Amino acid sequence: MMPRESPLLTDLYELTMVQAYCCRGLTKTAVFEFFVRRLPASRNFLVAAGLEQALEFLEGLRFSPEDLAWIEGCGRFRPGFADYLERLRFTGDVHAMPEGTVFFADEPILRVTAPLPEAQLVETRLINLLQFQTMVASKAVRCVLAAPGKKLVDFGLRRAHGAEAGLLAARASFLAGFAGTSAALAAPAFGVPVFGTMAHSFVQVFDDEAAAFVAFARANPGNVTLLLDTYDTEAGAVKAAAAVKTLAREGIGVRSVRLDSGNLGLHARRVRAILDGAGLRDVAIFASGDLDEHALRRLTDEGAPIDGYGVGTRMSTSADAPSLDCAYKLEEYGGTPRRKRSEGKTTWPGRKQVFRRAGSSARSAFDVLTVDGDPQEGEPLLELVMRAGERVRPAPSLLDARERARAQVESLPDPLRGLAKAEPYRVEVSPALQELTRRLDREAAGLTGGRAR
Amino acid sequence: MMPRESPLLTDLYELTMVQAYCCRGLTKTAVFEFFVRRLPASRNFLVAAGLEQALEFLEGLRFSPEDLAWIEGCGRFRPGFADYLERLRFTGDVHAMPEGTVFFADEPILRVTAPLPEAQLVETRLINLLQFQTMVASKAVRCVLAAPGKKLVDFGLRRAHGAEAGLLAARASFLAGFAGTSAALAAPAFGVPVFGTMAHSFVQVFDDEAAAFVAFARANPGNVTLLLDTYDTEAGAVKAAAAVKTLAREGIGVRSVRLDSGNLGLHARRVRAILDGAGLRDVAIFASGDLDEHALRRLTDEGAPIDGYGVGTRMSTSADAPSLDCAYKLEEYGGTPRRKRSEGKTTWPGRKQVFRRAGSSARSAFDVLTVDGDPQEGEPLLELVMRAGERVRPAPSLLDARERARAQVESLPDPLRGLAKAEPYRVEVSPALQELTRRLDREAAGLTGGRAR
Repeated sequence: MMPRESPLLTDLYELTMVQAYCCRGLTKTAVFEFFVRRLPASRNFLVAAGLEQALEFLEGLRFSPEDLAWIEGCGRFRPGFADYLERLRFTGDVHAMPEGTVFFADEPILRVTAPLPEAQLVETRLINLLQFQTMVASKAVRCVLAAPGKKLVDFGLRRAHGAEAGLLAARASFLAGFAGTSAALAAPAFGVPVFGTMAHSFVQVFDDEAAAFVAFARANPGNVTLLLDTYDTEAGAVKAAAAVKTLAREGIGVRSVRLDSGNLGLHARRVRAILDGAGLRDVAIFASGDLDEHALRRLTDEGAPIDGYGVGTRMSTSADAPSLDCAYKLEEYGGTPRRKRSEGKTTWPGRKQVFRRAGSSARSAFDVLTVDGDPQEGEPLLELVMRAGERVRPAPSLLDARERARAQVESLPDPLRGLAKAEPYRVEVSPALQELTRRLDREAAGLTGGRAR
Repeated sequence: MMPRESPLLTDLYELTMVQAYCCRGLTKTAVFEFFVRRLPASRNFLVAAGLEQALEFLEGLRFSPEDLAWIEGCGRFRPGFADYLERLRFTGDVHAMPEGTVFFADEPILRVTAPLPEAQLVETRLINLLQFQTMVASKAVRCVLAAPGKKLVDFGLRRAHGAEAGLLAARASFLAGFAGTSAALAAPAFGVPVFGTMAHSFVQVFDDEAAAFVAFARANPGNVTLLLDTYDTEAGAVKAAAAVKTLAREGIGVRSVRLDSGNLGLHARRVRAILDGAGLRDVAIFASGDLDEHALRRLTDEGAPIDGYGVGTRMSTSADAPSLDCAYKLEEYGGTPRRKRSEGKTTWPGRKQVFRRAGSSARSAFDVLTVDGDPQEGEPLLELVMRAGERVRPAPSLLDARERARAQVESLPDPLRGLAKAEPYRVEVSPALQELTRRLDREAAGLTGGRAR
């Protein structure tokens, strides 16, 4: 039942607003920016991800005959609106931080500059695409930081929120430094390496656990990981050790064994001893089961002899922060900056740029948030990626984005790379942006006779 | 980039296990059941949802030429495996609780009886589909219980985890008693009523808030909700009241106003007074912004004059419990019951049925979990829905499922319908199931010479 990619995958009000804009001839250039208002309590930074899917969405934006039939028949829209939508394409510009860029609260990671109806219509799906992968990449990178040198594999598909979430979590976690995923479709879709072990059900089908191990390995000789804990982990390890030797005589190598329940560190030490005692030092131990960055850190700290981890649900759902407080806001219309002033939801107005200043030893020192065009020192993070509805260059590869994320995270001040909440990274608001904000507030106060905020 | 519905949207190990089953001729009938091991701490019951999409998935299961090309080219599978997959269809039986059924820990809500490779292959996507809608319906119904008589609308699309999650959250929340959704595609896809208001960006485009209100209403005369809080909620209400009168002279009715920030109860009282003072008692107040069942309960308890709510992110992500501890487990193979005994993950073996016993005054009293075929009093909850790969009857309508959910929740003991954690609902394990479990453990202990558990 996978939903088709349809511009109707949007909030109804985007469509009613577009109709109103068209009725009123409000089709001048609008600037919207996507940003996160506040970082989740348990995040010191975020990793931008999802731009590639956002650009694909914009490139492919069109209403199908099926979509238009609904528009015409639903009784909510004027005659002629369907004709307008049939011709509608995204013709705007997009500036964005490349995927893999580290960013912070209030910093736009994507800016749309387009005729108002187009820029408005794409709001819902852009948020939907950008928040999810950014959220997952930002969670996954914490797992990577908590388990240095270990092979992490995304196991989150089954409890991800639907098909797209499962598939994009595989992409986002790979971008963040995971070695790969269990989700097979991520290989043909994104070139993400896929990994697989075996399930308890496989072992249960056999009357004898050792027979299950041998049968599995003979059927998949290039790719053998034996699951030990269907009945009793250490007893399983003894049987696995025997199976490994049987298989070796047939020329079949066993890469690793997997633990999936109980105290993983304790079982890993016992299983390591059993394997080593059998002369099987090359057989790696892989562990899974309710893991997140904190569990990984504990296992790392206790020196558990585990070589890799399957990290599933808590990563693919970003369980401790399953959404970001993010928004896609109008910052300028018809050349005039705009500012929302709702309680607790005020925005920095105008089209903006973010500069990153380097400190000593190649680490980032602080960022400057300013109005676009204000010359500042440092690396500007938003760049033009789409002009008049077309990409200005081919998409960077996912490996490039992964490398960018690695380098960006490496350049963060050390405390931000820890799991505990650190002193927030400094984001300065430039004098130019502060002055613009004050000016708009003065004008608003003058207009309304009301309170300036 | 919406992923296509592909059987490769699965964990790689399902495919490697299927290959091993085929190599070994392990194609006898297997029985798998989907159940939740433990309820989330903040849930007193769950509402089954997602069966319709699960059955569609099983009916449509087939490998496309594109899928098969990946299987053949990835270097992991034997020659001939792609030919086997090309012919593979789901030919099994499915028993399930109808959507909208309330259920508890350890109770299977779906049972697959099929040749082992088919039953194994579908594991990942069945879990993915059943957990998500069940989780969302179970969260949404708490919102419904917390705001009796209020119109609740799903606003969760933008921060749902991808497209499918957003669309299915609209379905699941409607099933749970919401009035509808903002997600336009849910209307053509599922017949869910759609609702829309206006965004802050619309107001910001105009130099004057009042002009924005009038322009919006003129463009969408049948469907007017005015958003008050772009700058200052009460000032917005005064302007809206004037706009309503202007529009009334043009024959355009304004249905409601919307609050989206600040202390919603306080603003609602002030706005109600402004509207009433202007003689606009018929204009309803609609509120949104970071709502969940607890916020709704507080607003209900304080008697906030709010007629309806947009409930978004926290519902569509089930923010306090963004996954269920659920599993799809082998319970029988080749006529013999099976039992997984991993630490903390033991299962009740065999194919099972759940009976619900009525107590006094038409309330449910307790459930009995037993082996299939064991005669028990009460209503059996699992029924045959698919035989040999084909549905035994047309799908119930979503409205029927919604009515079933309403009646099921109404029949729960009162404490379980509260938001606080209640004494758990009683689920008895029948003597027949206990005896089967003991027998399997005795046999396992005999086989392994190990500890019985």
